[in-house]
Amino acid sequence: MTHVADFDQMTCPTPRSQYERVLLGHGSGGKLSADLIQRVFLAELGNEVLSSLEDSATLSLDSQTNLPNHRNSGPRIAFTTDSFVVKPLFFPGGDIGKLAVHGTVNDLAVAGATPLYLSAAFILEEGFAIESLQRIVVSMRQACDEAGVTLVTGDTKVVDRGKGDEVFITTTGIGLHAANRELSIRNARPGDQIIVSGTIGDHGMTIMSTREGIEFETALESDTAPLNDLTRVMLDACPSIRVMRDPTRGGVSSTLNELATASKVGISLDEASIPVRAEVHSACEMLGLDPMYVANEGKLIVVVPEQDCQSLLTVMKQHSRGRDAAVIGSVVADHTGMVVMRSLIGGQRVVTMLAGEQLPRIC
Amino acid sequence: MTHVADFDQMTCPTPRSQYERVLLGHGSGGKLSADLIQRVFLAELGNEVLSSLEDSATLSLDSQTNLPNHRNSGPRIAFTTDSFVVKPLFFPGGDIGKLAVHGTVNDLAVAGATPLYLSAAFILEEGFAIESLQRIVVSMRQACDEAGVTLVTGDTKVVDRGKGDEVFITTTGIGLHAANRELSIRNARPGDQIIVSGTIGDHGMTIMSTREGIEFETALESDTAPLNDLTRVMLDACPSIRVMRDPTRGGVSSTLNELATASKVGISLDEASIPVRAEVHSACEMLGLDPMYVANEGKLIVVVPEQDCQSLLTVMKQHSRGRDAAVIGSVVADHTGMVVMRSLIGGQRVVTMLAGEQLPRIC
Repeated sequence: MTHVADFDQMTCPTPRSQYERVLLGHGSGGKLSADLIQRVFLAELGNEVLSSLEDSATLSLDSQTNLPNHRNSGPRIAFTTDSFVVKPLFFPGGDIGKLAVHGTVNDLAVAGATPLYLSAAFILEEGFAIESLQRIVVSMRQACDEAGVTLVTGDTKVVDRGKGDEVFITTTGIGLHAANRELSIRNARPGDQIIVSGTIGDHGMTIMSTREGIEFETALESDTAPLNDLTRVMLDACPSIRVMRDPTRGGVSSTLNELATASKVGISLDEASIPVRAEVHSACEMLGLDPMYVANEGKLIVVVPEQDCQSLLTVMKQHSRGRDAAVIGSVVADHTGMVVMRSLIGGQRVVTMLAGEQLPRIC
Repeated sequence: MTHVADFDQMTCPTPRSQYERVLLGHGSGGKLSADLIQRVFLAELGNEVLSSLEDSATLSLDSQTNLPNHRNSGPRIAFTTDSFVVKPLFFPGGDIGKLAVHGTVNDLAVAGATPLYLSAAFILEEGFAIESLQRIVVSMRQACDEAGVTLVTGDTKVVDRGKGDEVFITTTGIGLHAANRELSIRNARPGDQIIVSGTIGDHGMTIMSTREGIEFETALESDTAPLNDLTRVMLDACPSIRVMRDPTRGGVSSTLNELATASKVGISLDEASIPVRAEVHSACEMLGLDPMYVANEGKLIVVVPEQDCQSLLTVMKQHSRGRDAAVIGSVVADHTGMVVMRSLIGGQRVVTMLAGEQLPRIC
């Protein structure tokens, strides 16, 4: 379950019409998504694990009793699912297959788990080219190999022409938690530092530019990548890490807003320190978008106690997936539940959650 | 991974054009599905677990080493996924939500595992009525409660109008295997008896009749139901059970053909002993369909050594989900890989796998 906020803290009333029909914004990863999840899914299905709204569920299996038990001595597994509906299917830097593997691997990795097994369910549209499907499957295999996970089960359904869109892929992953490790979006504490593992907005702006047919001197490329080797190295070096999240749909702003709400803290950011590629910056300006809201598929946000921040940053910068890591802000006791950014020109602004739908079908 | 046969044994060549575009038949659960899986998915992604083509993957987790190991002493889990694209969403006896929970619960149950946890990923079409989504979610909650499983994680994506069809749901399940139990589609032995847990074709003919607007004096109803309580009772009473499968897409004929192929045995059926409701029989006649190929969503096939057959049948008949259980045939050493049925009028006929697409979007 990705990117969900506690809506008790939302203040602006949502017009009734938004609850009558599904809107594109309900898939944004922002405010409308969170609202749908809270009002439709959690209202009915809420339980201790689902309602915790972590990126992956933590489950315990007790081999002695054959019964589920959330607090016992058996292995604790991480369990997460995501559907992928990205358009176009193939884009600079990746494709829907890579994204489907990386997305699920990363949800397990940022939970602090070791990703082990994936399932993949395909919904194919009648008439879709088998050759394209083959390219996607090859890409998934390569992504699984790189991430060190095994695809162990799957399903294929076909819908009639015009009732789907070529291919949708749902991947579900199982990972294993190390004993005694507890990462949670509820763990951030005032004084903690916030690090992003690299440049932001690369994936979302690549998809947007591809769709809009915009070209730049330096080609934009999706950052889609597995993060489990980076997270392993980070957790080995710095066991004090409080939270990790991958800022996918809804971007860094939505992830940090969820964090501020769930941990009941404020977040202060320094815009000048946030790494953004020049070409992403240009594309954002051209399309009137803010990179803080744009999806990433190979980046993570990590919250760490101040005394361990520099050593963690050093470790991250030595890893190929963390070369451009930077401290972008800190957790504060002020303005609980809010993200406030000191802008490039010196003023302060509140960075809210993504309100509507900026980039449909970005992942 | 449901309903797949080893295509080494298929003899008729498939025209090349079938590999160029996805056809509705690729989702039938029959021959074309198996072919797509073999040539596109297994060719690239094949590994020991995936290639075993069981309804669910069996995985071992070793809490000591934090590494996957398929043959160790840690708990063995069952893992399975299915997408649901049934049309219409609501039908007599159930809806897509119930089906999505039952389908995944049953894949775990027939593997001999205790279903514990589910994930659910929704692909919503822009414009879909939220009230319908709410009805589906309520139905899923009721189905989870009845089956004793917990929905612990999920995802929601939205696609633009005309690029989906109201809602598709992918459920993935985790179950726990009892120590030392090994059910497998490879386990059938000559002399074993084959039992079906009740009437066949109810789900598929309900969907078809609803679509075609056909009405009968006695209303048809889908048999969608969780089978995990029945399988628990069966396995407790009869540990010698060799194989269990739920004959969903592709029907009883496809399941038995897979079994004959995977176990390298022949299967002899007696048509007179196969339970079919009168109204299903009428609907099949009217639409020119054979109930042997029609999907079931609350039935199972079990293969059991002859000496335990009657005691198992008695136990099954005492359970509400097995009241109409019947012995329908036996495993033989002859005609390896083939299913042969003695028909009502006394002749013998070969019952092949579903070749094309009989009932698109049946689950």
